[in-house]
Amino acid sequence: MTKPIGVFDSGVGGLTVVKELIRELPFEDIVYFGDTARVPYGIKSKETVIRFSIENTLFLLKHKVKLICVACNTSSSVALPAIKSHFKVPIIGVITPGVREAVYATRNRRIGVIGTKGTIKSRAYENEIKHFNPEIEVVALACPLFVPFVEEGWLSGKVVMDVAKTYLKPLKDAHVDTVILGCTHYPLLKPVIKKVLGRGVTLIDSAKQVAIEVKKILSVESELNGHRRNRGRHKFYVSDNPEWFNGLARRFLGGPLVNVKKVK
Amino acid sequence: MTKPIGVFDSGVGGLTVVKELIRELPFEDIVYFGDTARVPYGIKSKETVIRFSIENTLFLLKHKVKLICVACNTSSSVALPAIKSHFKVPIIGVITPGVREAVYATRNRRIGVIGTKGTIKSRAYENEIKHFNPEIEVVALACPLFVPFVEEGWLSGKVVMDVAKTYLKPLKDAHVDTVILGCTHYPLLKPVIKKVLGRGVTLIDSAKQVAIEVKKILSVESELNGHRRNRGRHKFYVSDNPEWFNGLARRFLGGPLVNVKKVK
Repeated sequence: MTKPIGVFDSGVGGLTVVKELIRELPFEDIVYFGDTARVPYGIKSKETVIRFSIENTLFLLKHKVKLICVACNTSSSVALPAIKSHFKVPIIGVITPGVREAVYATRNRRIGVIGTKGTIKSRAYENEIKHFNPEIEVVALACPLFVPFVEEGWLSGKVVMDVAKTYLKPLKDAHVDTVILGCTHYPLLKPVIKKVLGRGVTLIDSAKQVAIEVKKILSVESELNGHRRNRGRHKFYVSDNPEWFNGLARRFLGGPLVNVKKVK
Repeated sequence: MTKPIGVFDSGVGGLTVVKELIRELPFEDIVYFGDTARVPYGIKSKETVIRFSIENTLFLLKHKVKLICVACNTSSSVALPAIKSHFKVPIIGVITPGVREAVYATRNRRIGVIGTKGTIKSRAYENEIKHFNPEIEVVALACPLFVPFVEEGWLSGKVVMDVAKTYLKPLKDAHVDTVILGCTHYPLLKPVIKKVLGRGVTLIDSAKQVAIEVKKILSVESELNGHRRNRGRHKFYVSDNPEWFNGLARRFLGGPLVNVKKVK
């Protein structure tokens, strides 16, 4: 029962998922791995992302996790079937929970998806949406500059607004009423994206849905930690540059981190 | 005599150096390695960049290169002393050639340096400039958004101009008359940077100086290929995503590539 939940991401973005996990499951221990030595995954080939994802899974299994949450959208898009087929531990990605919410939210059956090049190229979101409802129209767009803007901390102002206007124009033109933020960094640009797309558009941030899904699975498998014990402990491992990770962590997690360790 | 020149970079940017090597030394064979599986180096720690640089050097040595050119500014800044101490083959970086040119060009003894976070944090350019002339004032700035803008192909227009204005303001305020483009991607933004800084400022692109340096060393060591043989052959290896590399290569090299191979 006291085994931790494992979370991995290509870097720091997965902390938006950790934030929601802590909110939803305050008594669970969490082990996070951020692959900061090989970030970003979004421009890498499918085989490479699969190889990295398997290595990350093996790392988390060494920490005896009871469930693995693939917080990285690129890994979830291109590597999830491969790693699910390799390992016995329950593994959940960020695609399906976000898609379920979006399909539920849309009124006009037009959904937009934004993400990295790797995520969009994989068509994982499109396929999953069509799986739920083949009649939904999907407009999927890569917005590669959003991640560097978030990591630079340029979260508002004229420049990022102009970038968002350029990227998001096809979504406006297509009159989507729901947009999936298909990258863990994008929730930090919510105010900008909302301003560009207008109030009529619902933004889906999958982190919250992922946390609810994790709770459901642990509950079904009777692996939930009860309320009697203390609040969960959270450990963070990175493959490089813990200072960089720590500097950005506050932005993603909404608070400072302790206990960030570098591993090989 | 027929051994190739080796060039490595974290990704595609080193092709700006290859372009100048081909212009300066058309009869030399070149083997290029772009570490696209682990790009970018600019946000990674010193130890990690050193480890990657050693691995890249070993790869080139397997191709029996007669000289290695470290085209990556981050590697040159943080890893050059380490790899020079390990290997017998002549190894040259991009820092010293650029610095020599800048020190020669400045009239008011105020030099600006722009680069990635890793390059700027290393203070390699500052130390090298001071080594040539301790009286020169150096203003060094990281411009992390420039690389993603170049890779996205946003090389002109309002948005990139606004980014450049924001980043380069401290250089204008300091009245530098010479600026070193301390990242292989930045030469592609020359028109924007020139427009922001004004005509009075000389931009130093080290690629050309590196090629001249390579020619000098090969000549001293009697390793230059004569004019009698055919034009050199150029081979390109990447650690991931040859399509992505190829797509960007045209922008950097000014022509299409043949012969890009993925290696482990």
